[in-house]
Amino acid sequence: MEMEDTDFWRNVSYQIINEVEKAISPFIGEKKSGENVKMGADGTPTKLIDEIAEEKVIEVLKSCGKSVILVSEEIGELKIGDGNVEAIFIVDPLDGTVNAIKNIPAYAISIAIAFSNKSTHLTSINDVKMGFVKNLATGDIYEAIKGIGAYVNGENVTPSSQEKVSGSSIGAYIRGSKAWKMNELFNIVRRIRLLGSVAIELCYVANGTYDAFLDIRGNLRIVDIAAAKLIIEESGGIVTDENGEQLNNKLNVKERTSIIASCNFNIHKDLMRILGVL
Amino acid sequence: MEMEDTDFWRNVSYQIINEVEKAISPFIGEKKSGENVKMGADGTPTKLIDEIAEEKVIEVLKSCGKSVILVSEEIGELKIGDGNVEAIFIVDPLDGTVNAIKNIPAYAISIAIAFSNKSTHLTSINDVKMGFVKNLATGDIYEAIKGIGAYVNGENVTPSSQEKVSGSSIGAYIRGSKAWKMNELFNIVRRIRLLGSVAIELCYVANGTYDAFLDIRGNLRIVDIAAAKLIIEESGGIVTDENGEQLNNKLNVKERTSIIASCNFNIHKDLMRILGVL
Repeated sequence: MEMEDTDFWRNVSYQIINEVEKAISPFIGEKKSGENVKMGADGTPTKLIDEIAEEKVIEVLKSCGKSVILVSEEIGELKIGDGNVEAIFIVDPLDGTVNAIKNIPAYAISIAIAFSNKSTHLTSINDVKMGFVKNLATGDIYEAIKGIGAYVNGENVTPSSQEKVSGSSIGAYIRGSKAWKMNELFNIVRRIRLLGSVAIELCYVANGTYDAFLDIRGNLRIVDIAAAKLIIEESGGIVTDENGEQLNNKLNVKERTSIIASCNFNIHKDLMRILGVL
Repeated sequence: MEMEDTDFWRNVSYQIINEVEKAISPFIGEKKSGENVKMGADGTPTKLIDEIAEEKVIEVLKSCGKSVILVSEEIGELKIGDGNVEAIFIVDPLDGTVNAIKNIPAYAISIAIAFSNKSTHLTSINDVKMGFVKNLATGDIYEAIKGIGAYVNGENVTPSSQEKVSGSSIGAYIRGSKAWKMNELFNIVRRIRLLGSVAIELCYVANGTYDAFLDIRGNLRIVDIAAAKLIIEESGGIVTDENGEQLNNKLNVKERTSIIASCNFNIHKDLMRILGVL
């Protein structure tokens, strides 16, 4: 990938972010924003505010003059423009929808970009080359380019240097038959936060706000994590699935996964021990 | 209490809020803000940013020209001014200190005011007549005057009308031997958030952002909840301790308690059933 290409796609991403932000701002904290308007391609209902956000994503991509594929929560997969596909956009137009509706200050847009290769359009999450997450409530922008680094608001970031899990601050989502593992975590780690935006909370690992984050509910979508995964890895953090394996999911909206992200291997191994994996 | 008195003490409270906000703003997201500078009167270490916030509270109260008692986390109890004490200020200068240090957008100042009666200076939490909580990250101000109502940013608020605990969004803090109750909650309620600021999350019950909030860790301080308790009650919500009893704690920094706050009696009873109290 040439540098001028990177700049081009980064500009498109920033344009998407700005347009979505403008479009949804009158709907923050409004009950009507939470009305279900249709069934999304991912199998969950689309709320009004999600639809407004996604429409803006499509609008900007249509105007960018290139041929792209959009993979997004509500619409599924959409080819935009003519000719050979140059880029695949994996977008969650609004992560933390309920927070946006309730005006809890943690909701974001997440954009990941992979580039097309001739053999297949939709490659894996490991082919993501650029990632952007903006917390629309605070204005913080987290971004990464593969091989270059991770940044928050333009400044290079690294994960925390926490070595002891007993002193760690983490985000953790566990439900159902595994909920007992929450007890273990609550009694061992220092602090647990649940902000309700996976994209933001994953990015918190990249810049040391959290020491780790995990979601082992088993229903995590690729659109939620595609950008943040790259941002954490480029910051120097660790990302695996709940079994400690590399994520290798296809870039589509049906795929579900789990994630454990940590500032370093020590914390990662300790968390996996607490979760009963190691 | 006369209306002009209310206005006077409200102005003092707003002045405190503004001065604290200005003083701590350069310290948000800064690691040095988290350095322990001394041991607080409540038995936990005072961090630099807590000390800066509390010093501003004292400064404003010293300049208000009245005789008051300040009850605050770090300093304990402090008489300010000469003559008969007119008001007791129960203040948490910075609730959610760790969030402020890490720039997680949920940290607040909490101010509750009770008025002195001759028999005893320090009365109970039920004597609080005015309460103010400002989320310093978002600018939202929650306030209440006893018998008048509860307001967010000047607008009258009421709790949510949620009737089913299975559809509820709650904040919940449980640890230690009771941590297993977290499982029950995680598997029954719709959504759990843990933002890390008790004062803000309690106020979320007053305006329907949360359907309920509970903290049964057993180490909750009166300074953390004195203002928010009045705000919830004035909004029409329910507040008890973890046994369903009315809170009746003395206004000091040593006292520890638990709290369950709900939008209505149905949700309150259901939560108590889940927690094994009913």
